[in-house]
Amino acid sequence: MTSQFSDSLSQTTPDSAPAEEALANIKGIAFIEGGYCPIAEAKISLLDWGFLRSDATYDVVHVWQSRFFRLDKHLDRFLASVTRLRLTLPYDRAQLTDILTQCVRRAQLEDAYVEMICTRGMSPTLSRDPRDAVNRFIAFVIPFSSIANKEQRQRGLYLAISRVRRIPPESVDPRVKNYHWLDFIQALFEAYDRNAENVVLLDTDGNVAEGPGFNLFVVKNGTITTPARGVLEGITRHTVIELCAELGIDASKAPVPVDDLHNADEVFISSTAGGIMPVTRIDDVAIGNGNPGPITRKLTDLYWQKHNDPDWTTPID
Amino acid sequence: MTSQFSDSLSQTTPDSAPAEEALANIKGIAFIEGGYCPIAEAKISLLDWGFLRSDATYDVVHVWQSRFFRLDKHLDRFLASVTRLRLTLPYDRAQLTDILTQCVRRAQLEDAYVEMICTRGMSPTLSRDPRDAVNRFIAFVIPFSSIANKEQRQRGLYLAISRVRRIPPESVDPRVKNYHWLDFIQALFEAYDRNAENVVLLDTDGNVAEGPGFNLFVVKNGTITTPARGVLEGITRHTVIELCAELGIDASKAPVPVDDLHNADEVFISSTAGGIMPVTRIDDVAIGNGNPGPITRKLTDLYWQKHNDPDWTTPID
Repeated sequence: MTSQFSDSLSQTTPDSAPAEEALANIKGIAFIEGGYCPIAEAKISLLDWGFLRSDATYDVVHVWQSRFFRLDKHLDRFLASVTRLRLTLPYDRAQLTDILTQCVRRAQLEDAYVEMICTRGMSPTLSRDPRDAVNRFIAFVIPFSSIANKEQRQRGLYLAISRVRRIPPESVDPRVKNYHWLDFIQALFEAYDRNAENVVLLDTDGNVAEGPGFNLFVVKNGTITTPARGVLEGITRHTVIELCAELGIDASKAPVPVDDLHNADEVFISSTAGGIMPVTRIDDVAIGNGNPGPITRKLTDLYWQKHNDPDWTTPID
Repeated sequence: MTSQFSDSLSQTTPDSAPAEEALANIKGIAFIEGGYCPIAEAKISLLDWGFLRSDATYDVVHVWQSRFFRLDKHLDRFLASVTRLRLTLPYDRAQLTDILTQCVRRAQLEDAYVEMICTRGMSPTLSRDPRDAVNRFIAFVIPFSSIANKEQRQRGLYLAISRVRRIPPESVDPRVKNYHWLDFIQALFEAYDRNAENVVLLDTDGNVAEGPGFNLFVVKNGTITTPARGVLEGITRHTVIELCAELGIDASKAPVPVDDLHNADEVFISSTAGGIMPVTRIDDVAIGNGNPGPITRKLTDLYWQKHNDPDWTTPID
């Protein structure tokens, strides 16, 4: 806080100082207000509706060994989300690609998590009419991170099924990737209380929906099912279905009853944040024999192999 | 943008510069990172989960003629919301009161909109576990604003009923005042398309829920009903019920079918942002005789009279 208005309260209550200090040590770059800056300096106005109304959409693409993975698909989805929210970007697709590439170069990260954001911004008159707002584009790059840590990727994640229901598509269009995560966060706390590591939410019909930032897949008798509706149309989810086609595995989108999850041979999750990750316990019950299964392993291997495929990646020099 | 990383892109694309300039002219003060600053300088880190996950709660109290209106009730609700989200405030109730008072004094506003916020903050290690985050308290004061402008307060608001359903309580606890507004925003755009000025959302059962930042009331044969569940437990809504008791008007919380809205003698909305405001058209159909009704007027008058009542207000010297 470097304002002339600062007073003694700032000295007596350190507030979030430890997090601020740590932030300065994170390798990351942001693009904000038309320029690049270290992630520790990247801040948005309190009055931006992206914060005060969570009126924003975003997308996350990852960079692995200096190559974007499926950048085109992420840009397609981001631009579709922007249109669905009736937002307007100040940059075209080529400029977005350039900005994201510049962020990664400047961050000097080989493996990175690259987030692009469009917020409603704010109206110059503080009007409550969202049509008056000047929309804003922001991007940032931080080190790559995974939903599952190394141990969890090896032995499988332990999930709980939450009593909190996923926000339904009748309220918020899940095709628009959005920051409405309070259902996920409250469900996560519930899962921690039950000694689980992560959480699954059901939809309003009581079928399996998704977890915080990931889609779910159930393997039974060699075929794969993922929930059809009321979930994020994940790029990694889409990738899994393409990989299944390549491997000759039958994969489909359909309603997934909770019992199918408990009775599965294998369960795995998919996310840009970690790719394909095995699940080996749900609500304290082992899935299959309690170890990551052969189909999950095969898909995971092929998923990472594709990170060298020129058709699926964009190199950053 | 004052970073050493800024480059030519910032010159060629003005981005949100008009909004930034206008912000500098808004009379307002924020308390952030333990100190006070002009609202134009008040910014939060992009990485705060209050932004990236909308993992935050807030409350808004207003100041009218240099008196807080029902500050205690707003603090009660804010502290309850903070607890429900398992957040921790770095300040106690007396300190919060002092910070809010300081903000209003420094802003030199007689009529103000005073927002208090607690965000999840961020973890020093960028961990995805919300338990690792250092929670953050922020407050800001800007000029008082109303959902309805002067003309609308006189002739009544024109509302549309949206096809978007309000996020249900099974997903996000509506007692926790939150920034999950995408349902409201999408519904607002739908209402504008239909030449309405604001919007009503129904709950998942098809009954009346609420609008963006306001509760609804239906008057029929001298008695008043407001939706019972799945809505914000508004302080102004509560105030209306207390005012009804004082005036000997029967008021209750119950499910409100859509038809009751269309067939009402009077309809009004309640919000800290404007108090009690009449509604005279819904979906292009006049309510009652198309003018604000006598019960709405009586309640509105008493509501504003209470702004001088020492029991309901806290003076700022």
